[in-house]
Amino acid sequence: MKDFMLEAIRQAKKGLKLGEVPVGAVIVKDNEIISSCHNLKETVGIVTAHAEMLAIQNASEILSNWRLTGCSMYVTLEPCPMCAGAILQCRINKLYIGTFDPTMGACGSVVNILQNRRLNRWVDIQWMYNEQCSEMLEKFFKSRR
Amino acid sequence: MKDFMLEAIRQAKKGLKLGEVPVGAVIVKDNEIISSCHNLKETVGIVTAHAEMLAIQNASEILSNWRLTGCSMYVTLEPCPMCAGAILQCRINKLYIGTFDPTMGACGSVVNILQNRRLNRWVDIQWMYNEQCSEMLEKFFKSRR
Repeated sequence: MKDFMLEAIRQAKKGLKLGEVPVGAVIVKDNEIISSCHNLKETVGIVTAHAEMLAIQNASEILSNWRLTGCSMYVTLEPCPMCAGAILQCRINKLYIGTFDPTMGACGSVVNILQNRRLNRWVDIQWMYNEQCSEMLEKFFKSRR
Repeated sequence: MKDFMLEAIRQAKKGLKLGEVPVGAVIVKDNEIISSCHNLKETVGIVTAHAEMLAIQNASEILSNWRLTGCSMYVTLEPCPMCAGAILQCRINKLYIGTFDPTMGACGSVVNILQNRRLNRWVDIQWMYNEQCSEMLEKFFKSRR
């Protein structure tokens, strides 16, 4: 489990090198990584190029199915409403989160898209509170000020 | 204004012909359409291929900018959390909606991603309650039962 988050962190660092907000996401099925991506929003110039969205697109192409039932996602930062919405729709069962996002977090910090009975679906969330994830982001935002 | 929604409806009908849930989205800047798309989720097999997401990606490519400031979107059906999240992030100023979605609507029907002060951004919503939009969807879902 820790190894999958380490791969997500490796991805985030790759994004950092490109000047992106360092976020990495990994999708796992049957204990194997099937997709791992980092944020590419600034590089490609499209808001939909978040790590989680790219990882979902990639996994759907690999499985030839928009349903990612039985898959888990490991992500270094709490997903925003867009990404949480995509996670909900593609039927990912479980989400492991490295650190919380107090400004746009949609898995409990600001809103909760993944665990709202009115949306008729539910994704299990496991918070990992990984120090590397939070430190990497803090450092990035400090360097931007 | 009505003409832009009519174009969104035309797009939705194109999607319908492909067996997609009929949803169309149009992005307008300076009173001109810069992007219009329909739902392609089943055709491409990826949940992120909703009409709104494709329209945003297309507009960002055209403007070479992830910020769609000064743009409006016309969409035949109330956006889901994923699409509402993307609309919020790309700085679309105003959203015109054809009909509401009582199951996944994220612009007031189930949740409201676009007008939540805690998310630190705000998108104006204008409901158009267009009969064509609701009838087209009702007919589609009846035919699927």
